[in-house]
Amino acid sequence: MTTMYDSADTQDRAIREAALFARLGERFGALMVMPAWAARLSSATAPVDRAALARLPVLRKTELMALQAAHPPFGGLVPSMADVGRLFMSPGPVYEPEGAGTDPWGAARALYAAGFRGGDIVQNTFGYTLTPGGFILDSAARALGCPVIPAGPGNTETQLQLIRQFRPAGYTGTPDFLKILADGAAKAEVAFTITKALVSGAYLPPSLRAEMAGRGVSVRQAYATADLGVIAYESEALEGLIVNEGLLLEIVRPGTDDPVPDGEVGEVVVTRIGGAYPLVRFGTGDLSALMSGTSPCGRTAPRIKGWMGRADQRTKVKGMFVDPAQIDTVLKAHPGLGRARLVVSRADEQDTMLLKVEAPTPDPALAARLGDTLRDILKLKGAIELVGPGTLPNDGKVIDDTRPVG
Amino acid sequence: MTTMYDSADTQDRAIREAALFARLGERFGALMVMPAWAARLSSATAPVDRAALARLPVLRKTELMALQAAHPPFGGLVPSMADVGRLFMSPGPVYEPEGAGTDPWGAARALYAAGFRGGDIVQNTFGYTLTPGGFILDSAARALGCPVIPAGPGNTETQLQLIRQFRPAGYTGTPDFLKILADGAAKAEVAFTITKALVSGAYLPPSLRAEMAGRGVSVRQAYATADLGVIAYESEALEGLIVNEGLLLEIVRPGTDDPVPDGEVGEVVVTRIGGAYPLVRFGTGDLSALMSGTSPCGRTAPRIKGWMGRADQRTKVKGMFVDPAQIDTVLKAHPGLGRARLVVSRADEQDTMLLKVEAPTPDPALAARLGDTLRDILKLKGAIELVGPGTLPNDGKVIDDTRPVG
Repeated sequence: MTTMYDSADTQDRAIREAALFARLGERFGALMVMPAWAARLSSATAPVDRAALARLPVLRKTELMALQAAHPPFGGLVPSMADVGRLFMSPGPVYEPEGAGTDPWGAARALYAAGFRGGDIVQNTFGYTLTPGGFILDSAARALGCPVIPAGPGNTETQLQLIRQFRPAGYTGTPDFLKILADGAAKAEVAFTITKALVSGAYLPPSLRAEMAGRGVSVRQAYATADLGVIAYESEALEGLIVNEGLLLEIVRPGTDDPVPDGEVGEVVVTRIGGAYPLVRFGTGDLSALMSGTSPCGRTAPRIKGWMGRADQRTKVKGMFVDPAQIDTVLKAHPGLGRARLVVSRADEQDTMLLKVEAPTPDPALAARLGDTLRDILKLKGAIELVGPGTLPNDGKVIDDTRPVG
Repeated sequence: MTTMYDSADTQDRAIREAALFARLGERFGALMVMPAWAARLSSATAPVDRAALARLPVLRKTELMALQAAHPPFGGLVPSMADVGRLFMSPGPVYEPEGAGTDPWGAARALYAAGFRGGDIVQNTFGYTLTPGGFILDSAARALGCPVIPAGPGNTETQLQLIRQFRPAGYTGTPDFLKILADGAAKAEVAFTITKALVSGAYLPPSLRAEMAGRGVSVRQAYATADLGVIAYESEALEGLIVNEGLLLEIVRPGTDDPVPDGEVGEVVVTRIGGAYPLVRFGTGDLSALMSGTSPCGRTAPRIKGWMGRADQRTKVKGMFVDPAQIDTVLKAHPGLGRARLVVSRADEQDTMLLKVEAPTPDPALAARLGDTLRDILKLKGAIELVGPGTLPNDGKVIDDTRPVG
């Protein structure tokens, strides 16, 4: 039988949802006395359900960076520096606080689901400096009672020496580096003692997972960011990623604040309620989709598909920035339409735009009006093509840039 | 008035000494049931004072490395892996376990003596991977309630960006890198918010300390190793380094197990009693000397001079290894002599040896006998020079290799 990290894993979905909103309600008042949060949310009352949550603005990375630049170190969004244990900087730059206490990034649940247990020695190949990757996994392993080898990235020879001397059972790092180590161990005739791996930070090809399984290594993925820690993780069910406890996860149409229908691909937006760094509707910039049903492993939290690309589709056309939010504005000017997709291509050494829109009927007058709105909003001309409802691909792409790179 | 980390800082010296030996007595039985320790110590009873301690063999790094290679990971010297939090590897290779709990390396006391207080943000520029330097200071800062920026070494531009955003009050790292950062901040017109620094890992020139003081940064040193954590540290008194609590520190003649008279330069040997990694008479390979009296700051622990070089004076003469322990053997064959110093030089494209020995009288027959013993032990001929008692320099050098390098 599957063992669980704790009873939260299998709680009733309605009870989890109610508890998350109750906790959000409890903390909301404390946020609203902070000028930065009060200015952002301009809402007197805490959201009581997902519909109310969806009316709050999504905080995107560019806004966060602007806030942090104006109000160092954390844009006024962290209630108390006394709750902060470590301070990080990720490319952007974006600055992230680490909470105090054990497992501040919520990664222990993911490690547990990947089969890690107290006493397993873990070789952690994420870096420990500047960005929090190394500490996300390190603190989780320590919370589970796993001794950690802070190996850091790279340096295969040294990593093999660590494996030889310490005989780790677990690996944390990128999928590719796991393969490099396994191959290196085989070549150097070092016993590859690793039997479980939690990988993150890069795409895991199914072929690599299968290959490693054939070599006795069970590989599971976690989806994590420097702002939020572990957002979702795989269990032995290997059916999507299970949303971490303590988080409210939504999928919104890229460039907008609006949730998409369940199953549709869009940007992952997360509300974190507890800890040193509350975040209300933080836009991760990553694409995924909610899955229906629950995991066969018995964990009851919502599930998402894996990472499906970047939601940040802002691009330049004829030298002008074009943003998914502008396409949303165009669409909202004409109620009753489905998805839209701006295809940017190159013809006769010129950028061209074609806006495909799902419409109930192929009405040429509607197409003409959409063309006018597009030109008004984008200050650029583009062709319009009306297509049948549900015919555009469900891949989260609002701007599909097909121009050759370079 | 000076504030102390805790009451241990100012306890009566005799009480501290008695407590250390009492604790050693309590733990000794548990060590003696471990085959590796029992084989090394071959002593049924715990040492009750320094004279008894001095009869136990010194564990030198070469022996430790051999033990660790034969019995991975830690040579059978660590009682329980359940007490180990992290596992490190230092050049050699030598492998080091980190104990569980807060401040496992005993560095919080040193940070406190350097003026660090809860709430001070600390920019930690020691590396976090493979070797324990970063964690030694990180865990200590966290134990004091100081948020830590895990900056790691190098990358001056990024470090200045961290200073700009996080405004750290404290610095931990090497002395040289502190100057690089201070100079870089001045050049880039970044406010240098650091006012206190605990430096380690390299020589601190008095001129650099003075320069930094002039720029508003109080700089203190800690002497630490990967095996033992913080061995000794400076306080505001700036009179030598105060031995850390929980350690029994001896100074022995390089290459031997024998304590030198107080004040004489020799190898630092440390017995650590508590924690996950007990070490009985571990030879650090570093030279220093005990100081008389107590620190004016009120801390009562013994003091040592700073780092005075490496005790490992083993060298090759005419292709043969010559070790300080061999010189000790020569000396012990002729009772009643003082210090000895083997001067290795180069003449007529040949290695030459001159053994200088402190003798009560310049007796040519004694010199001849010493020459014979030297040849017997080293399998190499050398000249003998008898000198007056107390005339050889007090610098811990048993082998003085004066040959030009390269």
